[in-house]
Amino acid sequence: MSVRHLVTGCAGFVGSTIVDRLLRDGHDVVGIDDFSTGREDFLTAALANPRFRLLRADLLDPAASFEAAEGVDTVFHMAANADVRFGTDHPTRDFEQNARVTLNVLEAMRRRGARRIAFASTGSIYGEAKVIPTPEDAPLPIQTSLYGASKMAAESFIEAYSEGFGIQSFVFRFVSLLGERYTHGHVVDFFRQLREHPDRLHVLGDGKQRKSYLYIFDCVDAMMQAMATSSERVNIYNLGTDEYCEVNDSIAWICEELGLRPAITYAGGRQGWIGDNPFIFLDTARIRATGWKPTLSIRQAVERTVKFLREFEPSVS
Amino acid sequence: MSVRHLVTGCAGFVGSTIVDRLLRDGHDVVGIDDFSTGREDFLTAALANPRFRLLRADLLDPAASFEAAEGVDTVFHMAANADVRFGTDHPTRDFEQNARVTLNVLEAMRRRGARRIAFASTGSIYGEAKVIPTPEDAPLPIQTSLYGASKMAAESFIEAYSEGFGIQSFVFRFVSLLGERYTHGHVVDFFRQLREHPDRLHVLGDGKQRKSYLYIFDCVDAMMQAMATSSERVNIYNLGTDEYCEVNDSIAWICEELGLRPAITYAGGRQGWIGDNPFIFLDTARIRATGWKPTLSIRQAVERTVKFLREFEPSVS
Repeated sequence: MSVRHLVTGCAGFVGSTIVDRLLRDGHDVVGIDDFSTGREDFLTAALANPRFRLLRADLLDPAASFEAAEGVDTVFHMAANADVRFGTDHPTRDFEQNARVTLNVLEAMRRRGARRIAFASTGSIYGEAKVIPTPEDAPLPIQTSLYGASKMAAESFIEAYSEGFGIQSFVFRFVSLLGERYTHGHVVDFFRQLREHPDRLHVLGDGKQRKSYLYIFDCVDAMMQAMATSSERVNIYNLGTDEYCEVNDSIAWICEELGLRPAITYAGGRQGWIGDNPFIFLDTARIRATGWKPTLSIRQAVERTVKFLREFEPSVS
Repeated sequence: MSVRHLVTGCAGFVGSTIVDRLLRDGHDVVGIDDFSTGREDFLTAALANPRFRLLRADLLDPAASFEAAEGVDTVFHMAANADVRFGTDHPTRDFEQNARVTLNVLEAMRRRGARRIAFASTGSIYGEAKVIPTPEDAPLPIQTSLYGASKMAAESFIEAYSEGFGIQSFVFRFVSLLGERYTHGHVVDFFRQLREHPDRLHVLGDGKQRKSYLYIFDCVDAMMQAMATSSERVNIYNLGTDEYCEVNDSIAWICEELGLRPAITYAGGRQGWIGDNPFIFLDTARIRATGWKPTLSIRQAVERTVKFLREFEPSVS
């Protein structure tokens, strides 16, 4: 029998991939998006499926959240301000889009009797972690970005709603994701620079920042695997591969894929921007214990992303 | 030279005690309170001091926060919904009063150029801690109450504002506080029950919950000590004594102080209410390293509280 799922941020990179997966698995899916960053063309297949219903609305409006949660069993709460880098330019945006919206979703779930939530959290909640690779029960971190703070706030309320109202929760702390429908982050920044001027590339920080990435389909597989096997009330999983790369490695792979050898300049400094974490590497033993493992390496995920961008964002010239 | 300080929740238990202390130390003080739970009589001395200015306003209104922060160097952000026990009866209140209000205060500080914040956080952010006594860098907890979640959210944004905007922050994680002007919590609950019917006392949970308490003047001394000595950007301190007691111990001390021997009944269960933490005991080595130590034991603080309540809440009969 099919169960109705709600996907928030359904027209985004992660949300739209989950929508397609749930429809493929035979579920009824309600999607909600305000299309502030979501893209309608990511929903082309879904919109042709009678089991999919799209709500165009802003989750900051409690009434919209309440409408979306009608008859829903499980919520995949993927809607977020995912613009990590410019947090300090608009200090209250992360609070509104990530913390406040999550509270609205939880309230709608409580009042509608929805049973489960899966939440897109982030390795950024670990700040500059003292333990690397960083496990889920790392020492209490100090938040270094408004984005991380807002996701920590959202996680905290999800846990309290689980304890107070019996909602089962799955908090997934993602590393940066790559792959088809990837629309923001360093690979697209570099890709656009090189499309504009193939002979040179400017890099924020010193290029030695060490980062982790995960391929989008591996990420969604991990979520589904965790949710299929656990009966715990609160479930927290790091999602990533068991490797990391330097920004310079990533640049080399992108350039090789594009057949370019640009001159590279560095802004300098260990951080690319305020709150940038110069070393992100998560301990993923817990999710691996479910039997899941990633199918693509970071290098393969970067290459797959560049292929997608060449098709999706062709040269304007 | 005097410096202007802002105390939010200035008519509350902790806030009013800080106001008196700052005035005694020769500072100019602005206090803000919406008097939803604050008491004007706690400000009798302050209101007679020309260095004190009172704003009656709700910090949920960003304009009120902005007005309050004018010309302010240091903010003691004590305003909060401190009603831990009934969180699930009004699920969004902790978010609004503790998380949202803290964001408003931080925004006002950023726009006004205020330099430092001291924040009243709580040992509740550790949930049911796995490490006891619990240090400041305990393993990342799972939140078990809306109150704890809202304080965790507030702490996270304070840290991110410190990183992003250079505000120095002092996060103080209190155990339960006792002493003069104490107006809610288990001692007042038991006191009122016994005033109503001196022959019997009903206790939530099994009476074996182990809790920690700190005397209000010891708490304020610890805050002042920490803020006088640290030049770190983000400072986090547990504040408590190096002991704990059972609820049953506390009952015995209260009854002895009142000269009563009531029949005691128990609701049963390891928790007094949803999200109640059956064992709170914080590691206070970090604040002790500043040279601070408490002057009263838990027993003495309970006795002092009962003496205060006898004077402050005399029998209605």
